[in-house]
Amino acid sequence: MASRQWKKEGTRISVKGIEIGGDDLFVIAGPCAVESEEQLDHIAAFVSEHGVPFLRGGAYKPRTSPYSFQGLQKEGLRLLQQASLKYGLGIITEVMDLSLLDEVYPYTDIIQVGSRNMKNYHFLKELGKVDKPVLLKRGMDATIEEWLLAAEYLLVGGNEKVILCERGIRTFDDSTRNTMDIASISLAKELSHLPVIADPSQGTGSSSLIKPLSMAAIVANADGLMIEVHHNPDEALSDGPQSVNFGQFKDMIPGINASARVMGKKSPLVFSKKEKVLNF
Amino acid sequence: MASRQWKKEGTRISVKGIEIGGDDLFVIAGPCAVESEEQLDHIAAFVSEHGVPFLRGGAYKPRTSPYSFQGLQKEGLRLLQQASLKYGLGIITEVMDLSLLDEVYPYTDIIQVGSRNMKNYHFLKELGKVDKPVLLKRGMDATIEEWLLAAEYLLVGGNEKVILCERGIRTFDDSTRNTMDIASISLAKELSHLPVIADPSQGTGSSSLIKPLSMAAIVANADGLMIEVHHNPDEALSDGPQSVNFGQFKDMIPGINASARVMGKKSPLVFSKKEKVLNF
Amino acid sequence: MASRQWKKEGTRISVKGIEIGGDDLFVIAGPCAVESEEQLDHIAAFVSEHGVPFLRGGAYKPRTSPYSFQGLQKEGLRLLQQASLKYGLGIITEVMDLSLLDEVYPYTDIIQVGSRNMKNYHFLKELGKVDKPVLLKRGMDATIEEWLLAAEYLLVGGNEKVILCERGIRTFDDSTRNTMDIASISLAKELSHLPVIADPSQGTGSSSLIKPLSMAAIVANADGLMIEVHHNPDEALSDGPQSVNFGQFKDMIPGINASARVMGKKSPLVFSKKEKVLNF
Amino acid sequence: MASRQWKKEGTRISVKGIEIGGDDLFVIAGPCAVESEEQLDHIAAFVSEHGVPFLRGGAYKPRTSPYSFQGLQKEGLRLLQQASLKYGLGIITEVMDLSLLDEVYPYTDIIQVGSRNMKNYHFLKELGKVDKPVLLKRGMDATIEEWLLAAEYLLVGGNEKVILCERGIRTFDDSTRNTMDIASISLAKELSHLPVIADPSQGTGSSSLIKPLSMAAIVANADGLMIEVHHNPDEALSDGPQSVNFGQFKDMIPGINASARVMGKKSPLVFSKKEKVLNF
Repeated sequence: MASRQWKKEGTRISVKGIEIGGDDLFVIAGPCAVESEEQLDHIAAFVSEHGVPFLRGGAYKPRTSPYSFQGLQKEGLRLLQQASLKYGLGIITEVMDLSLLDEVYPYTDIIQVGSRNMKNYHFLKELGKVDKPVLLKRGMDATIEEWLLAAEYLLVGGNEKVILCERGIRTFDDSTRNTMDIASISLAKELSHLPVIADPSQGTGSSSLIKPLSMAAIVANADGLMIEVHHNPDEALSDGPQSVNFGQFKDMIPGINASARVMGKKSPLVFSKKEKVLNF
Repeated sequence: MASRQWKKEGTRISVKGIEIGGDDLFVIAGPCAVESEEQLDHIAAFVSEHGVPFLRGGAYKPRTSPYSFQGLQKEGLRLLQQASLKYGLGIITEVMDLSLLDEVYPYTDIIQVGSRNMKNYHFLKELGKVDKPVLLKRGMDATIEEWLLAAEYLLVGGNEKVILCERGIRTFDDSTRNTMDIASISLAKELSHLPVIADPSQGTGSSSLIKPLSMAAIVANADGLMIEVHHNPDEALSDGPQSVNFGQFKDMIPGINASARVMGKKSPLVFSKKEKVLNF
Repeated sequence: MASRQWKKEGTRISVKGIEIGGDDLFVIAGPCAVESEEQLDHIAAFVSEHGVPFLRGGAYKPRTSPYSFQGLQKEGLRLLQQASLKYGLGIITEVMDLSLLDEVYPYTDIIQVGSRNMKNYHFLKELGKVDKPVLLKRGMDATIEEWLLAAEYLLVGGNEKVILCERGIRTFDDSTRNTMDIASISLAKELSHLPVIADPSQGTGSSSLIKPLSMAAIVANADGLMIEVHHNPDEALSDGPQSVNFGQFKDMIPGINASARVMGKKSPLVFSKKEKVLNF
Repeated sequence: MASRQWKKEGTRISVKGIEIGGDDLFVIAGPCAVESEEQLDHIAAFVSEHGVPFLRGGAYKPRTSPYSFQGLQKEGLRLLQQASLKYGLGIITEVMDLSLLDEVYPYTDIIQVGSRNMKNYHFLKELGKVDKPVLLKRGMDATIEEWLLAAEYLLVGGNEKVILCERGIRTFDDSTRNTMDIASISLAKELSHLPVIADPSQGTGSSSLIKPLSMAAIVANADGLMIEVHHNPDEALSDGPQSVNFGQFKDMIPGINASARVMGKKSPLVFSKKEKVLNF
């Protein structure tokens, strides 16, 4: 059911007045983790001012070490909701486990399934029954076939609003945090009718590579981007080195917009929402 | 807390009269999936006759494709319990998701966490509160440090009965289903006080390699083995090629027992329980 | 010496009136292997007509199996020279082994070091003494640091005309022949002053992915492309599936040219050299 | 020709009175690189005293960085010869490049092809014409099929004295220097009639893992071992951390000998040659 043979034309998903998989580039931005009211408000104001329609932010953080910051949890969800209302942003946040679904559901517009859960098939089956879109990150050890079969679990369950997200795979080369598999985006678009977006923050782990890899993903046929932004990456409680700061984010806009134009897509990013001008 | 620096001597875990991590080789055997009463009875009788103390068998099967056999579920648990009582075998089976923990808990002596769940930290935190031993399979994309940190989630939560299980990692070489990382067993034993066992069935995916890799794991310091056995691998509903048949299992006994003896360990395997003789 | 710290501005290499590493996109195209006079003439005429300045073609083919076609060898070199003279194309071909250097040297403008030789340090030392540019392919198991250190062998030896070429690395995912590491291009450009080009034919092994990955490489900061073209990929004696045919090559031109323009680079590709018009 | 289907019984290679691939475990030991007359004499005396029949030592060292120690070259070869005569040891050393073959040939009993050269097919073809045994290390990015096809190049060329050597592959896990693929030994023995040995020094890069992995390789069906020994690993000019010191080497003898006995093989290692007693 995820296959292009099953459905020729690309699936378009509408949520919060935004269409994903169509002519508009879909852009998600925000911090890795929700850290405080001030932090989230500051970042939400910034991304909103630059045309980003969706805010990301982890409330529950799955961390490799039990001694790392684990997220604000319920309070984090409340802060996301507050920022959403204040700035008119859609919300995407991760549901780490089926047992947390009921808690997170009311606060998010798109449910994120993390790469660590891509092969949690019991979880995927249950998400197949949910009526909100699901962003399915590729597992860092998943082949493209396995990724599409994971999407199949959601589709078979009845949820047709599935967005795929490439976020890098694990390889021998530790020059970058993960190896961003740009060809997987083109191939997933070829094999499947589902929208595919890219997460170059997780994919590279390095702020200086987010701009070129965002552009690469777009011309390789991605429908959107998910970018980690932080007003002060050096002090972020989680994954600072893979976030861009405000200046870096603004520097990316011309390249992202020009890449979108090459593909006949319209980017929502602007230097200032008030002016509504693309200064390229 | 998983570190040897924290606790010098090796942890020994007692369950169903068996001690894991001590002088006895711990052996688990059984089918990949519980398929029917006849199948499980047949296999349980066989493994019991050859001295195996613990029976494995999946009741809920996490399959890559939603169209594959997904397990007998509750009925599978009941069959495992029945075989356990009839043959005096301990039971180990996988809990695929936190939401299934209450259902599976009463039927199993050891809770298996599959490799796909090794990084499901929310799940691990909850299992830290459980009073039964947990077998923690290494994720196929997990470094040894990440594996030990996953164990840390269980230990921090209060569950000190953690058994590590190496089951192969994913590499470029598809000559074998996974690449069995024998050095990870030796290294995990060096770095941690927890018992470590090996699963050469998943680790190689090939019945002819299970014997040499079982022996290799033992002399590399493994505390035990988990082996998939099926009376008719060609007709198994799940992962047939990586199961040994009864004849192959018997052929492995001398090599396994001799390898255990090299390490000063006692293997429970016998050609016939009645005779209680090791015909090596 | 390969480092940006050693030399701030990017190295520009002039060969046959073409500047590599500057404002022009460098494009190499041609067959995987030279197969016959007709084949090479046909392809050379085509690529020349579309503005490609350099012709590639293997005369000695390093094949995984000794039973595969091993190249026309000396005769292949002669055919490359003939096509070069007839169509005014530069030539790049691989030197498989130091012992073949003297034989190949007079026929080629750029010496290609294959990925299998990237760690053949004795060979690299000798190539450091040569006065022709060297295209150094990244080994499929090489980290970026190892790749730059291999370039260092050439530079230390006295040859400063080194062009790096990313051609995909080997990972667990066999959905594509190799995994094209687009981030490595951006990172190599960041760390080194040397020109970096991309080989999406070897990198993906799939004709349908060559266009999106070519575009991705360009916006990720590549200085050029190396593309396998064959008039009849289905009958190619070597690596047919990773070659584009003439129609596919023409389809790529607008996307490649537009991507180059995003980066402020000028692409040499045209629909017809006679018209010298970019029909985009 | 490398296949078991082509030749049922295992190939036995005789060199310097030693038979490889038969009932005796073949053991090679010595330093990573020949550093000085004192160093080599000291180590050769030690390994000889403990029954090792073959001495290893690099004269030309292929190093990742051009700024690292590159070997004593010709002088290193002379020192190997001198030690060979003094202690009655066979010699194995690497030929880094075809152009060095004539230089190295007279000094070595077995020609080593390094993992970096496993896919240098031109080189392999030429070695097919040589009348000395070749030890073919597996490339760190080579599948088992590619490894056997590389051996095929030698066999087709006429050299039937090929010894395979597993030395670890490159994977995402950097807990060990490489990932020792023990299953590849069992599988290569199953698929091919050629002798297979293991190099746990390169395979793990860690002195504490050499003992367990040596034992694992033997019970997984290896015909021999290649072990790096240095009297003072901390001061070795090359790869110190992966060498065992004299005490560690002696500690390995009982485990290695017992593992060989499990496989019905005879190990040449003794605590003291004078006593010719296996103190196990």
